[in-house]
Amino acid sequence: MINQSYKAMLQNKSVIRQMSEYATKRKQEIGAENVFDFSLGNPSVPCPEDYTKKTIELLETRDPMTLHGYSPSLTLPQVRQAVADSLNRRFGMDYKMDHIFMTSGAAGAIAHAVRAVTKPGDEVLTFAPFFPEYHPYVDQTGAVLKVVPANTADFQINVDAFISMLNPKVAAVLINTPNNPSGIVYSEETICKLADILRAKQEEYGHEIFIISDEPYREIQFDGRKPLYVSKYYDNTISCYSFSKSLSLPGERIGYVAVNPRAVDAEYIVPMCGQISRGIGHNCPSSLIQLGVAEVLDQTSDLSVYEKNMNILYDKLVELGFTVVRPGGTFYIFPKALEDDAVAFCQKALELDLVIVPGDSFGCPGYFRIAYCVDTDMVIRSLPKFEQLAALYQK
Amino acid sequence: MINQSYKAMLQNKSVIRQMSEYATKRKQEIGAENVFDFSLGNPSVPCPEDYTKKTIELLETRDPMTLHGYSPSLTLPQVRQAVADSLNRRFGMDYKMDHIFMTSGAAGAIAHAVRAVTKPGDEVLTFAPFFPEYHPYVDQTGAVLKVVPANTADFQINVDAFISMLNPKVAAVLINTPNNPSGIVYSEETICKLADILRAKQEEYGHEIFIISDEPYREIQFDGRKPLYVSKYYDNTISCYSFSKSLSLPGERIGYVAVNPRAVDAEYIVPMCGQISRGIGHNCPSSLIQLGVAEVLDQTSDLSVYEKNMNILYDKLVELGFTVVRPGGTFYIFPKALEDDAVAFCQKALELDLVIVPGDSFGCPGYFRIAYCVDTDMVIRSLPKFEQLAALYQK
Repeated sequence: MINQSYKAMLQNKSVIRQMSEYATKRKQEIGAENVFDFSLGNPSVPCPEDYTKKTIELLETRDPMTLHGYSPSLTLPQVRQAVADSLNRRFGMDYKMDHIFMTSGAAGAIAHAVRAVTKPGDEVLTFAPFFPEYHPYVDQTGAVLKVVPANTADFQINVDAFISMLNPKVAAVLINTPNNPSGIVYSEETICKLADILRAKQEEYGHEIFIISDEPYREIQFDGRKPLYVSKYYDNTISCYSFSKSLSLPGERIGYVAVNPRAVDAEYIVPMCGQISRGIGHNCPSSLIQLGVAEVLDQTSDLSVYEKNMNILYDKLVELGFTVVRPGGTFYIFPKALEDDAVAFCQKALELDLVIVPGDSFGCPGYFRIAYCVDTDMVIRSLPKFEQLAALYQK
Repeated sequence: MINQSYKAMLQNKSVIRQMSEYATKRKQEIGAENVFDFSLGNPSVPCPEDYTKKTIELLETRDPMTLHGYSPSLTLPQVRQAVADSLNRRFGMDYKMDHIFMTSGAAGAIAHAVRAVTKPGDEVLTFAPFFPEYHPYVDQTGAVLKVVPANTADFQINVDAFISMLNPKVAAVLINTPNNPSGIVYSEETICKLADILRAKQEEYGHEIFIISDEPYREIQFDGRKPLYVSKYYDNTISCYSFSKSLSLPGERIGYVAVNPRAVDAEYIVPMCGQISRGIGHNCPSSLIQLGVAEVLDQTSDLSVYEKNMNILYDKLVELGFTVVRPGGTFYIFPKALEDDAVAFCQKALELDLVIVPGDSFGCPGYFRIAYCVDTDMVIRSLPKFEQLAALYQK
């Protein structure tokens, strides 16, 4: 008999996906240029030319049996070493190959990290607003995701709520900075405060609390800011990375787990990932893709369009009277809706062919997400739509 | 705190992997040409040239944003359609795109299939000798793998033992033909008998029992035999395929789930795979690799070397007095050891630098596996080693 829990999940369609499907249908009806689709977090710039060039080179020059051969169960050593070197160079870490495990994107990384540092029944805390996929990512491991309510003043963390939710069952805290959907980058003060609280609670509870740091937007920082590397601030950190956004390779499903060498039991975690893989059918990302990204680790796509789009949208939203915190990175912005019910608000936007996503599924009702990983031309052409939308709410 | 069950698993090293690691070390000591390494099931022939050519073409001609873009959650529609068409053409099935879900190899396919048709506590039966990874594949879903003892006469299934183990908790039967490690292909009679028994038991228990058919060796058939397609014989079948062996792409982690359109609830199973993926961090295999294999679906590598190697080894083993069933496919053969303790037997072989794997971890003590996915030259040069090994047991 088919599994009834998975069958039941078919009823709960993702709001983001519903919005995106509506947009696709609407584009067919009235032409793509007339639909302002800000629903999906899909990179809008190509991968670096070097990535394509190097991958073709691999295909043309390498022995196909080596190139397409099995990865060892802990993934390709030369790739793990290259990732360790790159992180050490960029962030002053001291990773060895043994701390790196290549995964199929950040989803694969989080799937391993959560299983490595929790057991069924444990709690994992995350901070609203948060990526809704964290629910299946965590809940299907047997651990339970609990959401700390948002600090809507600046979308840094809600410290009081966080402290009140900590308890001995908390095994990990899942954070995401730069943040989807708010676009906010946690300040150094926020990260230090988080680390201080966790260190004290570790002491109090007599067990580790890991930070699982989901970092796919790490390289998309605005105003010339350099990324803060979370692992520098807290020893028991597992960084989960994806090249989806930085190299515009979302379909290639490539990322990694990087275990802080100073974490308790650091030496076991990557070998344990190898064991976890056997049960979840992961067994290494594609060899060709592992080798391809290893060639361009310190590069990114031209990410400047995201900052440009953000500035245009931010200025217009402020001009129109929206309450909005200026993003420090990503390709998202998360303004307050002009009525309490963001679902109703986004429905009104939809009638203007403006496709935006209500904040409810991100754990932050009353707000909405604009994913501005689109052509700047579309952003500019969408501004009158935002004007019309705001006008609906003028007295 | 790190997860203690996964940590404990680090103690149980795979015997195959231990043998292979020993072989690698020994090759460094005495030269690769002096070690007869039959430990690993790694294809020894390159992928079809067309695969490389078509993948380069994709990289050179396609828009990188489309090429490397996100797959929809049920994987790329054009690839699913191409797989359905190919299976329909080859096996007279009537798959639609909706029945196909691309996965990261057969491991990924089984991870989805088991979760789709079992719930925690259910039993999954498999037949010895069996691929040892079935234990983590099944046990880590919460279902329990139970092993039907081998029928060592011909390595078809042990029908009496199978019937005695069936009970209402059995939700699925996991089969593997052509079989790793025996090299045996289930006869049409075996498949029909299995199907008849299961149909009767479904009726008796009032619930479905699915066949999960693990088919990575489907295209490696000897003596000009055409593959029997298990799904043709039993409606509630989920085929789990990998291109690892047929296209020699083990590192690229590409395969699929194909749900028999006549299975009960067939229309739900692929959408459920999409839900399962979210929890296990799978989320589609690499787009480039999906598109690449779609270009060469009806091709294989030149697989003839495996049959050639099998014949050389089989004839020699028979000549030396081994009890051995002649394989019908794969690149494995599974003779009886010359003493009861196959581990001791393989240890004696190791002293001759002949690396073979005891059958114990395949659920069949007293036998050993030779993986002859190697150069024919090495097979020929290894024959005196088998002679020396047999001589140790002559009175």
